[in-house]
Amino acid sequence: MIIVADNLQITDPAIDHAVREENPAPIRELVKACEMAGAHAIDINSGPLSKEPEKRMTFLVETVQSVTNLPLFIDTANPDAMAAGLSVCQNRAVINGFSLEPKKLDAILPLAAAHDADIIGYLLYPDSHVPPDAAERLAIAVEIHAACAGAGLDPARLIIDPIIAPLAWADGTTQNTEILALLRQLPDLLGYPVRTIGGLSNLTTGPAPREKKRLMERTYLPMLAASGLSFVLMNVLHRRSIETAKACNALTAGGIFSWASLP
Amino acid sequence: MIIVADNLQITDPAIDHAVREENPAPIRELVKACEMAGAHAIDINSGPLSKEPEKRMTFLVETVQSVTNLPLFIDTANPDAMAAGLSVCQNRAVINGFSLEPKKLDAILPLAAAHDADIIGYLLYPDSHVPPDAAERLAIAVEIHAACAGAGLDPARLIIDPIIAPLAWADGTTQNTEILALLRQLPDLLGYPVRTIGGLSNLTTGPAPREKKRLMERTYLPMLAASGLSFVLMNVLHRRSIETAKACNALTAGGIFSWASLP
Repeated sequence: MIIVADNLQITDPAIDHAVREENPAPIRELVKACEMAGAHAIDINSGPLSKEPEKRMTFLVETVQSVTNLPLFIDTANPDAMAAGLSVCQNRAVINGFSLEPKKLDAILPLAAAHDADIIGYLLYPDSHVPPDAAERLAIAVEIHAACAGAGLDPARLIIDPIIAPLAWADGTTQNTEILALLRQLPDLLGYPVRTIGGLSNLTTGPAPREKKRLMERTYLPMLAASGLSFVLMNVLHRRSIETAKACNALTAGGIFSWASLP
Repeated sequence: MIIVADNLQITDPAIDHAVREENPAPIRELVKACEMAGAHAIDINSGPLSKEPEKRMTFLVETVQSVTNLPLFIDTANPDAMAAGLSVCQNRAVINGFSLEPKKLDAILPLAAAHDADIIGYLLYPDSHVPPDAAERLAIAVEIHAACAGAGLDPARLIIDPIIAPLAWADGTTQNTEILALLRQLPDLLGYPVRTIGGLSNLTTGPAPREKKRLMERTYLPMLAASGLSFVLMNVLHRRSIETAKACNALTAGGIFSWASLP
C-alpha cells in the first residue's frame, strides 16, 4: 500500500496564503515533514483555482518538486490548472482525477494519455452523486474502465477510487463494508489487477471528538489494506495512523517479518 | 465480533498460586477487570492440570461464575478437567477445544454433544503441527467439520480456529494473510455460516518491544474483523487493543454509526 499525503490542501489557510503570496517556504516545510513522516507520494489539492489557475498550479508543482522526488498527485477539478501542473511536473505525476461527469470526461481524462500519466477514476455517477450500493459501484467501475479504453488510455494507468463514505452518513458503515468487498472483487470484475485508492480522511469528516476520529481511521485502514487497497490518501502527520499504515505494509507485504521494520 | 478475554491463564504465577491455594480473590478480581474492560466471554486456560484436574477446574469454573454471567471458554487439553468444568458450569460453556489428534477426537469432542456445548476445532494436523498452506487448512476444516457430524454434533456448534501464526515465524505474515482469505472462504466451503475464532496474542509471541507488539495486534485485528471473524480471543487489558476491537464492531456491525458508541 502506497501512502499518499493529503496534507497539502488549499483549504489550509497557511497554504492558501502561501499560494496567493507566492511564498514557497510553508509549502516546502510541509512537504518535507510529510516525506519525513513516511509519505510515498504527495497530493497537491489546489481546489478549483478560480483565479490564475495555470500560474498558481505551476507555482505549487514547482515548489513541491523543489524539495522532493516523490510522485505528485495533481488534485484539481480545473482542467487548465491540471494541464499546467502536468506540463511542469518533473516527478512522476498522477491525475486526481476524473469521473463520468461529462466535463471531466472531455477535459480531464484526455490529459492522461497526452501526458503519459496515471489517472484516478472516482466511482461516482455522472452528476457526482455517490452510488447507493455495491451493484451500482461495480457498474460504474465498468463504465470508468470503458471510458479509459475509449480515450486510448492503457487501463494499467487507471486507479479506481471507490469514495470512502463518511461515518456520519446514515448508511456510512454499510457503504464502507461494501467498499471492502468491492476492492476484493474489482480485479476479477475487470480482468486485471486494477489499482485502487481510498481517501481515509473522508471517513471522519464532520464534528466528532478528535481521538475517536483517529481511532476509526486506524481501525478502517487495516481493513482497506487487507482488502487489497493499492494507495491510501491520508493525513501522514497523524502519528498513530501512519504507524498503522506502516504496520499494515509489514503484515501484507509478504516475505520475512522484522520487528525492526516497524516505526 | 465477540471479545473473549485470554487473561485468565495458569501460566500467570498469581493465578497458578491462587489455584494451588484455592484462593478465589485474585481470580475474581481479574475476571471483574476483564468484564469491566469489555470482555463478552472469559477463557479459563488452566493448562494440562496434571495434579487434581477435576478439583482444580471445578474450583476455577465456580470461582469465575461467582462473579460473572458471561459465557466461559473452558480451555484445557485434559479431558477429565474439561468434563468436570462442564459439569459445574452454569454459564453458557464453550469447549476450547479439539483437533484431529486421536485422543482429542476420542475424549474431548464427545463432551460437546454430552454437555450441549459449543466447541472450538483447531485447524491442525492430527500430530498437532500447523498446516503449511491455505489448501491444507481448507482440507483440515472439512475433516474437522466431518468429525463433528460423525460425533452426532450439530455443525452449528462448531467454532473453527485457524491458528494465527506468530509473526516471528519465517512465513508468519504469509500464513496470516492466508488465514484472512480462509475466514472469508469457510462459509462457502462448508455451506453454512460457520463461526470462527482467532487467538490474537499468538501473533506477537516471542521477544519484541512491547509497543511494537501492541501495534501489530491493533493492526491485524481489524483485518480479522473485516474478514468475518466471529470471536477474538485477546488480552482485554491492552487498552488500545480493546478500543480497536470495539471500533471494529462499530464499523462492521451495520446499522447507524454513533460516535457515542466508541470508547
